[in-house]
Amino acid sequence: MTSSAAAVFRNTTDGFEIQHFELPPVEPRGAIVKVRMASICGTDLHIWHGSRKPPLPIIPGHEAMGVIAQLGSGLTTDAAGAPLHEGDRVTWSYIWTCGACYYCTILKEPASCLRRIAYGVGIGCADPPHLNGGFSEYIYLRPGTSIFRIPDSLSDEVVVPTNCALVTMVHVTGAAGVSLGQNVVVQGCGPLGLYGATVARELGAGQVIALDTNETRLGLARRFGVDLGINVSKMSDDDVVAKIKELTGGIGADVVIEATGVPQVLAVGLRLPREGGTYATIGPIYQGATVPLDCFNLIFRRIRLLGVARNDAAHLRTAISFLERTRSKYPYELVVGARFPLEKVTDGLRTVDERKVMRAAIVP
Amino acid sequence: MTSSAAAVFRNTTDGFEIQHFELPPVEPRGAIVKVRMASICGTDLHIWHGSRKPPLPIIPGHEAMGVIAQLGSGLTTDAAGAPLHEGDRVTWSYIWTCGACYYCTILKEPASCLRRIAYGVGIGCADPPHLNGGFSEYIYLRPGTSIFRIPDSLSDEVVVPTNCALVTMVHVTGAAGVSLGQNVVVQGCGPLGLYGATVARELGAGQVIALDTNETRLGLARRFGVDLGINVSKMSDDDVVAKIKELTGGIGADVVIEATGVPQVLAVGLRLPREGGTYATIGPIYQGATVPLDCFNLIFRRIRLLGVARNDAAHLRTAISFLERTRSKYPYELVVGARFPLEKVTDGLRTVDERKVMRAAIVP
Amino acid sequence: MTSSAAAVFRNTTDGFEIQHFELPPVEPRGAIVKVRMASICGTDLHIWHGSRKPPLPIIPGHEAMGVIAQLGSGLTTDAAGAPLHEGDRVTWSYIWTCGACYYCTILKEPASCLRRIAYGVGIGCADPPHLNGGFSEYIYLRPGTSIFRIPDSLSDEVVVPTNCALVTMVHVTGAAGVSLGQNVVVQGCGPLGLYGATVARELGAGQVIALDTNETRLGLARRFGVDLGINVSKMSDDDVVAKIKELTGGIGADVVIEATGVPQVLAVGLRLPREGGTYATIGPIYQGATVPLDCFNLIFRRIRLLGVARNDAAHLRTAISFLERTRSKYPYELVVGARFPLEKVTDGLRTVDERKVMRAAIVP
Amino acid sequence: MTSSAAAVFRNTTDGFEIQHFELPPVEPRGAIVKVRMASICGTDLHIWHGSRKPPLPIIPGHEAMGVIAQLGSGLTTDAAGAPLHEGDRVTWSYIWTCGACYYCTILKEPASCLRRIAYGVGIGCADPPHLNGGFSEYIYLRPGTSIFRIPDSLSDEVVVPTNCALVTMVHVTGAAGVSLGQNVVVQGCGPLGLYGATVARELGAGQVIALDTNETRLGLARRFGVDLGINVSKMSDDDVVAKIKELTGGIGADVVIEATGVPQVLAVGLRLPREGGTYATIGPIYQGATVPLDCFNLIFRRIRLLGVARNDAAHLRTAISFLERTRSKYPYELVVGARFPLEKVTDGLRTVDERKVMRAAIVP
Repeated sequence: MTSSAAAVFRNTTDGFEIQHFELPPVEPRGAIVKVRMASICGTDLHIWHGSRKPPLPIIPGHEAMGVIAQLGSGLTTDAAGAPLHEGDRVTWSYIWTCGACYYCTILKEPASCLRRIAYGVGIGCADPPHLNGGFSEYIYLRPGTSIFRIPDSLSDEVVVPTNCALVTMVHVTGAAGVSLGQNVVVQGCGPLGLYGATVARELGAGQVIALDTNETRLGLARRFGVDLGINVSKMSDDDVVAKIKELTGGIGADVVIEATGVPQVLAVGLRLPREGGTYATIGPIYQGATVPLDCFNLIFRRIRLLGVARNDAAHLRTAISFLERTRSKYPYELVVGARFPLEKVTDGLRTVDERKVMRAAIVP
Repeated sequence: MTSSAAAVFRNTTDGFEIQHFELPPVEPRGAIVKVRMASICGTDLHIWHGSRKPPLPIIPGHEAMGVIAQLGSGLTTDAAGAPLHEGDRVTWSYIWTCGACYYCTILKEPASCLRRIAYGVGIGCADPPHLNGGFSEYIYLRPGTSIFRIPDSLSDEVVVPTNCALVTMVHVTGAAGVSLGQNVVVQGCGPLGLYGATVARELGAGQVIALDTNETRLGLARRFGVDLGINVSKMSDDDVVAKIKELTGGIGADVVIEATGVPQVLAVGLRLPREGGTYATIGPIYQGATVPLDCFNLIFRRIRLLGVARNDAAHLRTAISFLERTRSKYPYELVVGARFPLEKVTDGLRTVDERKVMRAAIVP
Repeated sequence: MTSSAAAVFRNTTDGFEIQHFELPPVEPRGAIVKVRMASICGTDLHIWHGSRKPPLPIIPGHEAMGVIAQLGSGLTTDAAGAPLHEGDRVTWSYIWTCGACYYCTILKEPASCLRRIAYGVGIGCADPPHLNGGFSEYIYLRPGTSIFRIPDSLSDEVVVPTNCALVTMVHVTGAAGVSLGQNVVVQGCGPLGLYGATVARELGAGQVIALDTNETRLGLARRFGVDLGINVSKMSDDDVVAKIKELTGGIGADVVIEATGVPQVLAVGLRLPREGGTYATIGPIYQGATVPLDCFNLIFRRIRLLGVARNDAAHLRTAISFLERTRSKYPYELVVGARFPLEKVTDGLRTVDERKVMRAAIVP
Repeated sequence: MTSSAAAVFRNTTDGFEIQHFELPPVEPRGAIVKVRMASICGTDLHIWHGSRKPPLPIIPGHEAMGVIAQLGSGLTTDAAGAPLHEGDRVTWSYIWTCGACYYCTILKEPASCLRRIAYGVGIGCADPPHLNGGFSEYIYLRPGTSIFRIPDSLSDEVVVPTNCALVTMVHVTGAAGVSLGQNVVVQGCGPLGLYGATVARELGAGQVIALDTNETRLGLARRFGVDLGINVSKMSDDDVVAKIKELTGGIGADVVIEATGVPQVLAVGLRLPREGGTYATIGPIYQGATVPLDCFNLIFRRIRLLGVARNDAAHLRTAISFLERTRSKYPYELVVGARFPLEKVTDGLRTVDERKVMRAAIVP
C-alpha cells in the first residue's frame, strides 16, 4: 500500500469528498497507522455545520485507533514504556505537543503547548504529510506523538470513543478532586456524562447523582455507575436545588460536573455545590456560549468553577488502564451504536446529529 | 463600668441611635472586650444604605479590636496558645463557629459553619447579650470565639482594618495558590487590592501588576508591593489583555485577583489569566451582582474561577504574624485615614462613602 | 440502671478486675452510651503486656460502639448532621479534641489537639466520670465528642473493628494520595492491610498487590480487593523488589503502605516505590521501634516517607459511609472472629495474641 | 575555533588531564556553548575522591554557564520562550530528558526520565560528541536541553553556583510546601542552607531559623534571610529540640530542611518538626549513608519525611527569575570565593575540599 483514501471536508457548501494521498516517508520516531475505527464526536458535527472553523480542507477524526503500519527508527516503546511493533493495535493522544515550550517544560501542562497540533481538528490536509485526521485509511503520527498500545481485552468499539470522551472525564474528575465519599452530581447523560459517572463511582464517590430530561439515557446511566438518575424535565430550578440538598443531608453536592453542552444549565448547576464545593464545566466550548453568572452565589458560597478542556497523554494512559480494569462492570460496548464506511461519513454525521445513537464510528 | 454605649442601626429610615446596654454575665471561656477601634468596611455601607439586610436593630462593626475587660473562667490562652490576661490588646475572628457541625468537624471549613454567628453583620442586638458588634464601647465574645493577642509592635490603626481586608487577601492568595515566581494581576487598588499586592509580593510572586483608574491609588500601590501599576481608565479591554500578555512573555498572568467590587470587571479580568490560570473574585458580594460569563473562554482556556468569602481563625492568625513581620516594609498606617467617636458614626460612614479616605475608624 | 460494670486493668501484675462505677451526670452535649461491642486492637495487647504505658488503672477499649442511653441537652444531631435520639446505635471518634487549641483552630489537624483525650487508651478511670473506655457496660462521652449514628444496614460486628482499623486506612490512603490507576503495594494482610487494600481498590487504584508470609491471610486478601497476593516468605529482598518492578512495567509502585507492625519490613519496603513515590508506615508505633534508614535510596529516588497515626472525625465519617456503600462487595463480617463477655476479657486478649482470630470482640 | 580544551578526569590514580576535542557538528535544536564559568559542587569532590563513580573518563562540571557559540537550526527561543541568539549568555538544566518516557509524559516528573543524561556527572567523554561537561572551553548541548537566557543584571558569579544549589532549594521548599507564616528550620549554613533560608524568607515564612556549628557561616546566614542562627556546637539534641519548641510557642517547626550532607543530623532533625510537620533531606546522597530511624517518632508524630534530589527546567527557570528579583537584597556574589583556570582544576577542588571558600569557579 502506498496511498490512502481519506474523507476530506472542503467547506460547508461542498461537504466531504474522498481523496487519495501518498503515504509520507516516516521520520525517526514517527509512525503510520492504519485506521481501524474513528468515532464521530460533537466537535465533528460543529465542523460539518460550520460552527467550528478549522483550517480547510481537513480530514476530521480525532477519536481514532488503528494498527501500526510502519514505525520510524527509534520508536521502540509506547509512551507507557511497553514495546511497540508494527501490527500492534494502538491509539494516541490527539494533541501533539512540542516538549520544549513554556507550557511543556515549565508549567507541565502540555495540553496548552504553544505549538500544539490537534489531529483531525486543528490541522488541515493541504500540506504534507496531509494524513492528519482519523477519517482516513491511514494517519501519519509525527515524532513526539504519545502512542499507547491497546490491551487485547479491549475491543475497537470500546476504545475508540473513550479516546476523547472518557479521557475528558478522567481529566475533569481529577481537576475537580473527586475523592472518597464525596457526593457527585453529573448534569447530562450523554457519553461524557455516563463516563463521568463511571469514573466518579470508581474513585469512591459517595452518591453519584445524574440529571437529564431523557428517560432512556437515565436508564442507561444506572448501568454506568449512577446511583440515582433524576428526570429534571418537569422540575423548576428551585426543585432541583431542593432535591440535591435533600439527598445530601442539607449540605449540597461536593462536586458538580456539567456534561450537557448547553450553557443555560450553569444557572441551576452553580446552585448545586455545597459552600466551598466545585463546579466543573466542559460542554459549552463554542464561540458565543455566554450565560449570566450570579457573582453573589459564586462568592458568598465560595464556589470553585473550573473550565476543563484538552487532555494530555497522562489522561489517556489512565483511561486505557481504567477501561481494562473495569471493562466487565460497565457496558462500554453500548456507546458506539452505528458504523459507516469512509464514503458514508455524511450518513454517520447525520445519524449522530439526529441523536439516533450516542456515537457512530467510521470504519475506513 | 456596668453598661456600654453602642451605635445601634435601626433601619434606613431611622438610621443610628446611641443606646446603652447592661454588660452581660461572662460565661466560661467567654470574654468582654472594651473596644478601642472599629473600622468601617464596605459591608457597613451596604447595611447603612439598605442594600445588605442584616437582622435589625444591629450594632455594626466587624473589623474591630480592643482590650480584654473580663475573661470567663477557663479562657487562659488565645487561639494561638499565647497566655491571655485582662488588659491584653486583642482582636478576634468575627465569625463565631460551632466546632460541631458538618463543616466544622468533617469538612474543616469552619467559615461555612452551619450555626455561624458573624459579629457586627449577621446578628442583631435585640436579644441578650446584645453587645454583638464593634461600634460599641464593649463587645461580648461568646465561648469559642477565636481571640488573638495583638503584638505590641502593631498599633491599633494597623491592626483594625486588616482584620477583614488583609485576612481576606491571605485567604484569597492561599486559595489561588500564589507561589514562587508567579505573575499576579490585582484588579483594584483599594485596601483589599493593596493588601493583596503585599501578600503576593511576600509570597515570592514574580511580577505583581495592579490595575486601577485612579492615579493616587496607583501611586500608593507601588508602596504596597506592586511592581507595575497600570491606569486602565483609557484602555480598551483588548488593550489591557494585550498589555498583560506583553508583560508576561506572551503567556498571561498565573493568578488574577479581583478586588474592585464591580462585577463588570470580570469581563476583562477573565481574559487575563494564562491557559490553566486562576481568577479569584471577592468583590461583588451583593444580591443582583450578575454579569455575562463567556463559557468558551472559561473552558477552552481552562480557567479556574474562584469565589472567595468569609475567613477563619487560621487566616487571621497568619495575617497578624504577617503584619508583625512586614510592618517596616509597607505603610500600613496609611490605610485608616480618619477617626470618629461613636456618636459620629454617620459622619464616618459618609466619609468612606465619598471615598475621601480608604478606611475610617470608630473610636468608641 | 444507675451503675456500670467495667473491666479495669490495674497493672501487669494484677491484670484485670471487674469494677462498678456510678453513671455520671450528663453534661450539656455529653452522652452516656450503653456499649454493645468493643473490639481488641493491637494497642490493647501492648497495654496488657506493659509495652504501652497508659495512665493506670484504665478501662481499655477504643474500638467500640453502642446505643445512646442518655443524651445531654443540646445534643440533637450527630457530627454529620443526622438527628440523634436515645436508643440510636452509634460509634464515635475515640479522640476527643478541644476545638480551641492551635492544632484544632489554626492547623485544622485536630488529631494532634494539644488537650486531646483518647478514650480507652490515653485516659485512666481513677477520676470522675471514670467511664472512659469501651470494655465496660457504659461509656461516658464528654461534650465535643464526634458521635456518628450507625446505618441500619451495618451490623455491630462490621462497624466495631473498623472504628480504628478501617479509619486508619482511610486516613493513610488519603495522606498518601492514592488515586486513579496508581499501583499500590500493601505490606501485611492483617485487618489493617485488608482494609487498606479495600480502600485502595475503591479509590480506583491500578493494581493492588499485597505481601504477606501467611497463605491463609493472602487468600483472604483476594476477597478484600487485592489483585495479586505474594507470599514473600521464601523471597529475598532483591526478589521482592524485582517482582514489584516486573509487575509495574519496570517503574515500581506509586504507593506502598506498611501495615505489619514490624519495623524491619521498612528495609525492603522503601525500595518498592518508584522514583518520586510514596511510602506510608503505620505499624511500628511503639517505643524502641528503630531501623536503619538508607538515606541514599530515600534521597536519590526522591521517596516521600509518611508516618501516619491518629484519625479524626472526618476519617470516621468517611469510613462509615464507605462501609455502607461497599458492604455487599467485601466480607467485612469475617474480621471479628470471636466474642467474649466482659469478665472474659483476658481470654479475648489471649485469643488475639495467639493470632487465632483477626479481631476478637468484647460484648459487655 | 574548531576544537575545545577540556579538563578530563581519568580516574583517582591519574587524576585530571587537559585534552582537546573537535567541536561536534550541531544537530537541529542543539547548541555549542562557550563556557564562561563552571563552579565546583560537592559532587565534583566525590568524583575526584572516588566516592562517586561516574562513567570514566569524564569532563566534570554540571554547575555551568556560558555564551552561545553556535545554534542548531530551529532553536530560536529559550525554554521560557525568550528569543535566543548566538552570543547570548545562557545556563541550562544539567539534566537532559527525553520527553517521551513514562516519567516525562505520564508522571510529569522529567527529573526521573528513564533516559536522562546528566551533563558533567552522568555521562563520560569517551564517545562523540565528547564535550559533555562544564570544565571545558566548550560544551555541546544536545537537542531537548532546557536552555535559559541569563538576564543582564545577573553576573556570571551569581548565576553559576545557583544552577545546582539554589535550584535544589527552590525544589525542596516547593516539595515541602513552605508557605505564609510557617516556621522553617534549616540544618546547615553552607551554600545550600543559605539559599534555602533565602527562598523560605521570600516565600513568606514566619521565622527562618538556621543551625550550624560555625560562627562565620551563622553570621553570613543572617545576611541570607535567616532570622535566628543557632550555634549547636555545644548543645545536646535535647537542648536543640527544646530551643526550637520554645521559639515556636511549644509547637515545633512546620518545615525542617536538612542541608548538611551529614546523615547523623537526621536524628535530632526529625525531632524538630511539629506533629504533622515536614522534614526534607537532601544532603547525604551517597552510597552507605545510613542512619537509625525512630519509627515511633515518625509515626506517632505523623512526620512527612521527604528525600529530594534532581531538579528540572521549571526549578531552574524559577531560580533565575528569583535571583533577578532579589539580587539587591542578598549578597549572592559572596558565594563564589575563588577562581581557577582550566589547567588549575585540581587547585580549585582542593580549595573547596579544605573549606576555604563556599564555592570555587573554573574559568576556562
